Amino acid sequence: MKFRRSERLIDMTHYLVEHPQELVSLTFFAERYGSAKSSISEDLAIVKDTFEQRGIGTLQTVPGAAGGVKFISKIDQDSAKAFIAELCQLMEHSDRLLPGGYLYMTDMLGTPRIVNQVGKLLAAAFSEKKIDLIMTVATKGIPIAHAAANYLNVPVVIVRRDSKVTEGSTVSINYVSGSSKRIQTMVLSKRSIREGANVLIIDDFMKAGGTINGMINLLDEFNANLAGIGVLVESENADERLVDEYVSLVKLKDVDVKEKSIKVVEGNYFSTSIPFL
Amino acid sequence: MKFRRSERLIDMTHYLVEHPQELVSLTFFAERYGSAKSSISEDLAIVKDTFEQRGIGTLQTVPGAAGGVKFISKIDQDSAKAFIAELCQLMEHSDRLLPGGYLYMTDMLGTPRIVNQVGKLLAAAFSEKKIDLIMTVATKGIPIAHAAANYLNVPVVIVRRDSKVTEGSTVSINYVSGSSKRIQTMVLSKRSIREGANVLIIDDFMKAGGTINGMINLLDEFNANLAGIGVLVESENADERLVDEYVSLVKLKDVDVKEKSIKVVEGNYFSTSIPFL
Repeated sequence: MKFRRSERLIDMTHYLVEHPQELVSLTFFAERYGSAKSSISEDLAIVKDTFEQRGIGTLQTVPGAAGGVKFISKIDQDSAKAFIAELCQLMEHSDRLLPGGYLYMTDMLGTPRIVNQVGKLLAAAFSEKKIDLIMTVATKGIPIAHAAANYLNVPVVIVRRDSKVTEGSTVSINYVSGSSKRIQTMVLSKRSIREGANVLIIDDFMKAGGTINGMINLLDEFNANLAGIGVLVESENADERLVDEYVSLVKLKDVDVKEKSIKVVEGNYFSTSIPFL
Repeated sequence: MKFRRSERLIDMTHYLVEHPQELVSLTFFAERYGSAKSSISEDLAIVKDTFEQRGIGTLQTVPGAAGGVKFISKIDQDSAKAFIAELCQLMEHSDRLLPGGYLYMTDMLGTPRIVNQVGKLLAAAFSEKKIDLIMTVATKGIPIAHAAANYLNVPVVIVRRDSKVTEGSTVSINYVSGSSKRIQTMVLSKRSIREGANVLIIDDFMKAGGTINGMINLLDEFNANLAGIGVLVESENADERLVDEYVSLVKLKDVDVKEKSIKVVEGNYFSTSIPFL
């Protein structure tokens, strides 16, 4: 069965977007559509141009016999700016304010459009680094970790507070939470990280960074490497930050419980060197 | 700026796939590409045909002034069969066997390709039902619940075992776990479900169905409706099933700890009335 160009472009777009960071050979597409490689090359040039123009991402061409194309999800700076501005506005709603000055964010972290966009921005920040897997901690970081993992096409491992029988043998560490100074425990399944893996840590919220620091210590136990840290929200009111290098989308600047006001601004996203489209 | 058909098809494919179950007007596309509505109609006909042929889904056309098109993610029966067979094979590996006859599935639930495909199959089963949100329970159900939510374009709420300050006021219930007969607690943020919402329950594993039954009781507390139940794995060794109507992808038939053998077969997926492509 032969496919027309229009059909090829539609299916290719879908295929590439569903297989980010994966090297796809021209032969694969040529056989899939019963087309000549030269036609596939032309198709891919059109796809690449359109992806870049429309802020979808880019196609990397790997030459040679073992070569092919790789879809890299990226974002343009304007779209990232607009989305982060929207996040700030969403988070500043006074009805998010909880007793103790905490913020209700559960609805945002349950909305696919927001979760995916957060994942896309965080993934874009690390799209040119070598990432083997993403690590997060239960519960609230899981959706954005998985969303970022979708764009980077890497597995996710979830650190837990308690050991469960379904995790098999585990490695556990104690750490001091940065803000409450309490000793806490973190547990990760022993077979979840291989030695030497390059790990990106993703979480929803970072105050002093105690939890993230705990995850870094856990990486040491596995002889794995820290490849980066990305958080949705960082809080400015941290006495002493335990973590230096990270990417944050927004920053919680101030919470005034009495006045019921919340101040949220851009995080450090645009001052780190994000490879924008 | 005017777009050529090839560029429109690429961008449209991406846009529709990223906005499932969302009514998009022809005017939206006409303005996006500076094209006549008649050209957009032709484009959409090509997209629809290709989506159906390639097992991506379908486009529903809603006529009239407020009309447009809606992308519905679906799957064809053969692809679903093949994926479920792959799941069975994956799960039968003897190194998944844990003390007590439990199964290690954490790696599968951390792999984007598997998680997305599980979500796609579960979403396809409910693609023609009215679903307002998906409910799951922490921790292992979260990735597949979010994956299904991506295809249905609905929010996810996560039931927890413990109450956390960041959830605000909560509703909590006690329930009896079906297999261990222990009394357990379930907590859900009060503002997470509105009255009358149609809720799809998604979980990774169902034995007697105690946990899912607990979630159904929780729905009553919110005056919400149960719209369906979808699980990745059901276990056959349940004395007494507390839940009748559900969709399962695979069924854990037998675990022999001594022989180190695991038997996994197709769930009830193909005997329920899935609206396949």
